[in-house]
Amino acid sequence: MRIDIEPIGIIHSPFKRKEDIRTLGFSSATGFDDVEGEIEVFKKYEKGLKDIEGFSHLIIIYFFHKIESYSLHVKPYLDKNLRGVFSTRHPKRPNKIGFTIVKLLERNKNILKVKGIDMIEGSPVLDIKPYTHRDKKENIKIGWLEGLLNKY
Amino acid sequence: MRIDIEPIGIIHSPFKRKEDIRTLGFSSATGFDDVEGEIEVFKKYEKGLKDIEGFSHLIIIYFFHKIESYSLHVKPYLDKNLRGVFSTRHPKRPNKIGFTIVKLLERNKNILKVKGIDMIEGSPVLDIKPYTHRDKKENIKIGWLEGLLNKY
Repeated sequence: MRIDIEPIGIIHSPFKRKEDIRTLGFSSATGFDDVEGEIEVFKKYEKGLKDIEGFSHLIIIYFFHKIESYSLHVKPYLDKNLRGVFSTRHPKRPNKIGFTIVKLLERNKNILKVKGIDMIEGSPVLDIKPYTHRDKKENIKIGWLEGLLNKY
Repeated sequence: MRIDIEPIGIIHSPFKRKEDIRTLGFSSATGFDDVEGEIEVFKKYEKGLKDIEGFSHLIIIYFFHKIESYSLHVKPYLDKNLRGVFSTRHPKRPNKIGFTIVKLLERNKNILKVKGIDMIEGSPVLDIKPYTHRDKKENIKIGWLEGLLNKY
């Protein structure tokens, strides 16, 4: 079974290359929380943004378009051990799908100004969903990330 | 630009048809939290599950395979107004990508036993990612869902 996906938009980011992202993020106290960027939704899909202004946070599902291959075992930036790729957020994954929750600052027609950008310029957007209380989980355990991930 | 996606697994759910899901969920105090099911990762990708046992919650990105079309304005189950599809979790969306956070109960080789299933039997899995503290957002606003969504 093969599934055909067509991007609904594109990400505009201060990070122009993969290398620009590497040192930020997990290791910093606020990570990417303060990094601003824009989600440009293609005009064809603009009507689908109705009512989105009411939400403070959005789930962005996107495509790691600059990644060319994947591994089932990867070495995360924060760690020196090989981990199963599904236990990480590493981009070298089957289907190269990325996931980030951003804060919505403002909508101007088909452009969403957001904070929390950890994607690179030009990343294709596959879906946008509202973040709700159902997505806040309590008593979570984070395996190998314990002690490495700053719990801001 | 078209993106070619190949499922990495399949969801086993007590919900056999779309209609089985409708009345559960948002409206119930615990929603789908107690609904058990399995994520079967195809043998080819099993190695990618290394270290996953350490995480209590997983992000599941999947495909609404029983949905045939999409609308930019949809009527959510909880609401009587038409909403922009990107302001909802409605399955009739461009790219038909679904997103659910489940609780990991147990791993047996390539089978993940989980709680929190709101997908139907046979849904193709596109990606699995660990849920971390970065995914818990504070001071969230939920627009048109305010007052409708049970904030358990």
